[in-house]
Amino acid sequence: MKLSSFSHAGQTSWGVVTDDGIVDVGALSGNQWPTLRDALAADALSQVKELVRNATPTLQLADVTFEPVIPNPPKILCIGVAYHEHRLETGRDVTAKPMVFGRFANSQVGHEQALLRPPESEQLDFEGEVAVVIGKRGRRISVEDAWDHIAGYSVYCDATIRDWQRHTQQWTPGKNFVGTGGVGPWMVTRDEIADGTDLTLSTRLNGVEVQRTTTDLLIFSIPEMIAYCSTFTELEPGDVIATGTPGGVGGKRNPPLWMKDGDVLEVEVSCVGVLRHPVRNEAA
Amino acid sequence: MKLSSFSHAGQTSWGVVTDDGIVDVGALSGNQWPTLRDALAADALSQVKELVRNATPTLQLADVTFEPVIPNPPKILCIGVAYHEHRLETGRDVTAKPMVFGRFANSQVGHEQALLRPPESEQLDFEGEVAVVIGKRGRRISVEDAWDHIAGYSVYCDATIRDWQRHTQQWTPGKNFVGTGGVGPWMVTRDEIADGTDLTLSTRLNGVEVQRTTTDLLIFSIPEMIAYCSTFTELEPGDVIATGTPGGVGGKRNPPLWMKDGDVLEVEVSCVGVLRHPVRNEAA
Repeated sequence: MKLSSFSHAGQTSWGVVTDDGIVDVGALSGNQWPTLRDALAADALSQVKELVRNATPTLQLADVTFEPVIPNPPKILCIGVAYHEHRLETGRDVTAKPMVFGRFANSQVGHEQALLRPPESEQLDFEGEVAVVIGKRGRRISVEDAWDHIAGYSVYCDATIRDWQRHTQQWTPGKNFVGTGGVGPWMVTRDEIADGTDLTLSTRLNGVEVQRTTTDLLIFSIPEMIAYCSTFTELEPGDVIATGTPGGVGGKRNPPLWMKDGDVLEVEVSCVGVLRHPVRNEAA
Repeated sequence: MKLSSFSHAGQTSWGVVTDDGIVDVGALSGNQWPTLRDALAADALSQVKELVRNATPTLQLADVTFEPVIPNPPKILCIGVAYHEHRLETGRDVTAKPMVFGRFANSQVGHEQALLRPPESEQLDFEGEVAVVIGKRGRRISVEDAWDHIAGYSVYCDATIRDWQRHTQQWTPGKNFVGTGGVGPWMVTRDEIADGTDLTLSTRLNGVEVQRTTTDLLIFSIPEMIAYCSTFTELEPGDVIATGTPGGVGGKRNPPLWMKDGDVLEVEVSCVGVLRHPVRNEAA
């Protein structure tokens, strides 16, 4: 299933995206699971599948405004310097453990919503990533058990204000400007992507490919990320892990390639889809 | 007012702590504001004060289990290396901007709840801090306007797993172990602490003072922290800013002073109160 969160006619809801349109599960279930996070927490995806089997889609993609796949995640864990190609371009050493930083939910926008270049900086950079959505609560999850905690996969835009990322050693400010994170347009449930599938990730700016990798090139595998993060924190249904960006970021080019008003950023993950954002200058 | 979140008889609620006990505002208001965060978001503190004026406290402090002051904060922003004394002991340079990292809410426990030393590390270190609770939403808040966005002050325990803090350059893992953050026992509302009051912060381990400072020694003032953070993120009612720890942390002593099972940590902030945590080994 492709699960998406959206708003329509002033109401927020979520549902299943089919070839014939969107089944509004929030409405169809009588608000039994008001949000996708609630459905994940209730372990209700098989019930949802059953509910949707004979339902008629009532909305078309063009009818809705996409929200971040999980608009209210308990946590957004981002993995830094996750591919060697990006590690080399940033001049960083290999670390024995994954690098982890956090995003706040209010930094995110949905598919087709504008990424915002704030008036404080010209250095709005792209970072395409594979996102993992957690379905099952857990602490100290083993690498072997990690797959069972994944609800599905999505596409992440971890756009970054580079100069603010480097104000100090901690990256939080440059990674949390409002309107710089994107996740969507939907998550594809784990039953449709075999565990360990090599996903291809590509990023396009104005139609030109600027990043490309496959997830077999991750320094730490997705199960290793889950095992590590769950050692310190309890993973919860609706948590999102942004698994890191490959080489090619704009700030490491000569001259640098910053995103600007009027640009269009697309991030594509095979088996999942394309997350698209226009870029706009934010009003001061 | 002293505002506190707690659980009692299996229910979570919040209320006002008076000399004669706790007024359960969650119950008294007929759940109009189910959580303290809801009351802050509704800008309802003057209504709360009126409601409580002639109410009789129905609970004693010993009757309740304290929760983190805001159990469900939209964001927990932590300021790193906030006092020169701590900056010097950590061997860090002066930065032109505040250092900011995040905590997730599930790393926190309430007053009198145990801090947990995880089986993965012996390096559980103390960091006493002043906490600021945001009452009024805002973006790009000026230093001059910053006070108006403060709902009140609390006491923060930013206990840290030092070796996990240093796995990579990003501190998130060492700052987010379950049972390492504490905030409480209550927040004191801004009307009772004049803007700009120098607060005295002290940390005691087993009754021995290990940290002491005053907030006039902060490298960046509280209004400067609010102005900086609100440049990248929108501050929201219920957000917590942990304003950073002074010198004296255990990991910089010779020999290091790590917290261990059976210890008692107290953090005191003048005009606010004492946050107290026993320390326990976490079961593996």
